[in-house]
Amino acid sequence: MSSSQRLKTLSNHLQRALKMKLLYPTSLHLDTKSLEGFSVELHPYDVTLPIPEPLIDAEFLVTWANKPTNLRDAASRMKNLRWIQSLAAGPNDVLGAGFDASRIAITTGSGLHDETVAEHTLGLLLNSARRFYEMRDYQSRGEWPGHLGGPQPDRAPGTFRTLKGVARSTGVRNGFEVVAEDRLHEILPKTDALVMILPGSASTNGALSAERLALLPNHAWVVNVGRGTSVDEDALLEALEKGSIGGAALDVFSAEPLPKESKLYAAPNLILSPHAAGGRPRGAEALIAYNLRRLLAGQELKNII
Amino acid sequence: MSSSQRLKTLSNHLQRALKMKLLYPTSLHLDTKSLEGFSVELHPYDVTLPIPEPLIDAEFLVTWANKPTNLRDAASRMKNLRWIQSLAAGPNDVLGAGFDASRIAITTGSGLHDETVAEHTLGLLLNSARRFYEMRDYQSRGEWPGHLGGPQPDRAPGTFRTLKGVARSTGVRNGFEVVAEDRLHEILPKTDALVMILPGSASTNGALSAERLALLPNHAWVVNVGRGTSVDEDALLEALEKGSIGGAALDVFSAEPLPKESKLYAAPNLILSPHAAGGRPRGAEALIAYNLRRLLAGQELKNII
Repeated sequence: MSSSQRLKTLSNHLQRALKMKLLYPTSLHLDTKSLEGFSVELHPYDVTLPIPEPLIDAEFLVTWANKPTNLRDAASRMKNLRWIQSLAAGPNDVLGAGFDASRIAITTGSGLHDETVAEHTLGLLLNSARRFYEMRDYQSRGEWPGHLGGPQPDRAPGTFRTLKGVARSTGVRNGFEVVAEDRLHEILPKTDALVMILPGSASTNGALSAERLALLPNHAWVVNVGRGTSVDEDALLEALEKGSIGGAALDVFSAEPLPKESKLYAAPNLILSPHAAGGRPRGAEALIAYNLRRLLAGQELKNII
Repeated sequence: MSSSQRLKTLSNHLQRALKMKLLYPTSLHLDTKSLEGFSVELHPYDVTLPIPEPLIDAEFLVTWANKPTNLRDAASRMKNLRWIQSLAAGPNDVLGAGFDASRIAITTGSGLHDETVAEHTLGLLLNSARRFYEMRDYQSRGEWPGHLGGPQPDRAPGTFRTLKGVARSTGVRNGFEVVAEDRLHEILPKTDALVMILPGSASTNGALSAERLALLPNHAWVVNVGRGTSVDEDALLEALEKGSIGGAALDVFSAEPLPKESKLYAAPNLILSPHAAGGRPRGAEALIAYNLRRLLAGQELKNII
C-alpha cells in the first residue's frame, strides 16, 4: 500500500469517528488556540511520564523532547495512534521507540529550526572571526586584550577576522554556487570558514576526515551545527593543536555531553557550544495545523518519512 | 572667508603648483594604484616617526593611527599643508595636534567604519543573546554548559535569548521608527537590547545615566560601540551587580585600556571587547581619491569639519 493510499484509507476511517484526540506536549509553549476548529479534542500531556489512561486511545500525537521511556510506553500502549508529528528536525527518537511505521504516519519538524540554527551559526562565525572567546579569556584574568582591538589589519591574506569575503563565489542556488562532494578537494584549499550542517548517519560518519582537514588553509575555521559524528574529532584535535587550521566552533560532538576527560575542552581556538543552535521549534502550530488539515482530508503530509 | 571661498582660493593656488605631494600612511594597506593619475606625487610615510625632511613641504596628508608625537611634529613643521584626510571616524587626534584649521581643510573617515562596526555589534548582540561568553567560562573549567543547550524556551517573556523580536517596531527611517531623546522614557521600558553608537562629547557624557538604566527591563542588554564616556559606568556596574539589567557588551570604556583594578572585568554578564569594533577603514582609497579630485577642482570636500 503506497503512502498516498494509506492516507486515503486512514482519512475515510477518520471521517467515521466523532471526536478524535490530539495530544500535544507541555515541554514547550504552543498556542493551542490556533489548533482549534478541527473537530479534534486537544489534550496536553507530560513528555516525561507515561501517557495517562484516559488519553491512551488518542489518534494523534505531537512530540517534543519526549523522554525515551515516554515514547516506548506510547509505542506499546497507544493502539489507535495514526499520526505522530515530531517537532524535532529528525525522527530518530520516534523511530527508536518502536512505533509501528506501517500503520502510523510519522512527520518531522524539518524547517522549524532553520531560523534558530542560522542565528546560532552566525553567532559562532562572528565569535570565531572577531575572537570574542579569546577576549573572554583575557577578561577572566582581568587583562585588557589590546592585541585584538585598536587599529588592525582588515582581510589580511591568511587570516579570518571578518565575515566580509567569506562567500567564495556566487552561483546557482539562491545566488550561491553549490558544489558536490567530488569537487571538495578544489574548494577546501580556498575556504575561510567551513560550515557543516550534515545530519547524523552512516554516510556522513567522519565526513570531515584528516585528509580533508589537511586541505584547509591554516586560517580556516570549522563551524559544525549538524551532528558531531560527521567530524573525525581526533583528527580535528590534532589540526587545532598543530595550528594547521585557524580554529573550530562546535555545537555538536560525537558524545554529548562532551566527556570531562575530552581534550577538546582545552584545545586551542576551540569554541564549545552545548548543542544550543536549535532546540526551540518556530512555527510548530502552523505545521501541526497544516498536517492535521491534510490528514483529515486524506492528503499527503508535509515532512513525512 | 567661508569654507567654499577658502577651497576656491586654495584650488587656484594649487593649479599653479606643478608636482604637489600627498603623503599616505604605512599603518594600513592602501591600494595606491587607485590614487594615481592626479598629477600628484604619492609618498608613503611612517606614522610613528617625524615626517622626513624631503617630504615636509607636502600639501596633502592622509592620517591613520598616527602617534600624537608624529601629528604634533607635522602640525609645527608642515608649512605648505592644505588638506588632511583622516581615515578615523572622528577628527579628535588631528584637532588635538595643533594644525591651523583656518588654512588647512580637515576631512574625516566618517563612513569607512560602518561595515566593520556593524559586524562587531551584531557579534556582540549574538554573544549576549546566545551566551557564548558563559559557554566559554564553562569550557575553561572543563564543564559542559548543559543549561544553555538542548530543548529550550524561545522568546520567553522577560528573556533575551534571540535577536528575533529585537526590532521594536517598523517606522520612518529606512524602515525603522526613529525617536528623539524626549521619548526615551517611553521606549526604554520596552527595550530588549539598547545599542549605543554615540560619539564622545560634552553633550553625550553619561547619556546612559542611573535614571535611564532604571527604566530598562531586567532582561535588557546594553551594547556600546560608540564611546565609553556616554555610559555612567558606576551606575552600570551597580545595575549588573544587582541584576536590574540582563547584561552589557562593551567595546568602549571611559578609560582605555580598562584599568586593572576596574570592577567591570568581573561584573556579571559583562562582555568586554577592547575597542575592536572598527579600527580597519574600508574604502579609504575611494574617499581619498574623491576628495583629492574635488580639492583640485575647488569643490566642497566630503566629511569636512
